[in-house]
Amino acid sequence: MSVTDELLRNNERYAESFDGGGLPAPPSLGVAVVACMDARIDVHGILGLREGEAHVIRNAGGVVTEDVIRSLMISQRLLGTREIILIHHTDCGMLTFTDDEVKERIQEEVGVKPAFALEAFRDLEEDVRQSAARIQASPFIPHKNVRGFVYEVETGRLREVR
Amino acid sequence: MSVTDELLRNNERYAESFDGGGLPAPPSLGVAVVACMDARIDVHGILGLREGEAHVIRNAGGVVTEDVIRSLMISQRLLGTREIILIHHTDCGMLTFTDDEVKERIQEEVGVKPAFALEAFRDLEEDVRQSAARIQASPFIPHKNVRGFVYEVETGRLREVR
Repeated sequence: MSVTDELLRNNERYAESFDGGGLPAPPSLGVAVVACMDARIDVHGILGLREGEAHVIRNAGGVVTEDVIRSLMISQRLLGTREIILIHHTDCGMLTFTDDEVKERIQEEVGVKPAFALEAFRDLEEDVRQSAARIQASPFIPHKNVRGFVYEVETGRLREVR
Repeated sequence: MSVTDELLRNNERYAESFDGGGLPAPPSLGVAVVACMDARIDVHGILGLREGEAHVIRNAGGVVTEDVIRSLMISQRLLGTREIILIHHTDCGMLTFTDDEVKERIQEEVGVKPAFALEAFRDLEEDVRQSAARIQASPFIPHKNVRGFVYEVETGRLREVR
């Protein structure tokens, strides 16, 4: 049995006790969270979020890429969110390599070099500020209420980046 | 007090009872989930996932964009995942508009038209297949074990798309 099959069994149990039907699509708290995909972060857990309350956008690094701008644009313009929470975290994989070195390795192995940035970074706080700056610079995000955080995987605590 | 401040208070409580420290970065189940950002989906909840088990990638629609390829590439090549679960869902906002109409509205309002696809879609199952096809077509994703699902926001149940 694959891992996916095991998770589907978990879903059957979830559905049996499900009582969240009938919630509307617009997030009731009017907030969108942008976080790293890291396995140690359960966004609903660390923020005490319940179903229906917030959009959750996640990728490698929690970096504000064009796809995150797309998602935030849809979140704010079509589904009414007004606040943005950015979450990077300690011990992030994105701190362990450089774009150039991984792209070169991929080119050697598969013959094709990614034509996109991998978005590796060297400084956690600085990259949170960079992600906030990309939101500030975007003409497509009407509401610029952004706050950035580093989640400490060692303590479970969010530390604000100023 | 802003919504963000309220969520930070929740995080303080979370950190007080935190005992997840010391988990490694590579997901213990070797799986990456790609899901829509929709507020009604708690990915950890619906799949019974615990901290440390899986990467979670989310955006508007749960669509496999270039940024998702970037994240999956890092997930598989640097952090050892081998299976991919795609999750779209019923009552998705991406079914309610077309790229052209929203882009035109944005151009009228802010003077700049997005140079990227919004990735709206008309058919849920077909878009899950399209996302799987993009993974199959990518030279950067070594492991193509992909299964796609529609999450029913009415019942809490995952339905496989073949």
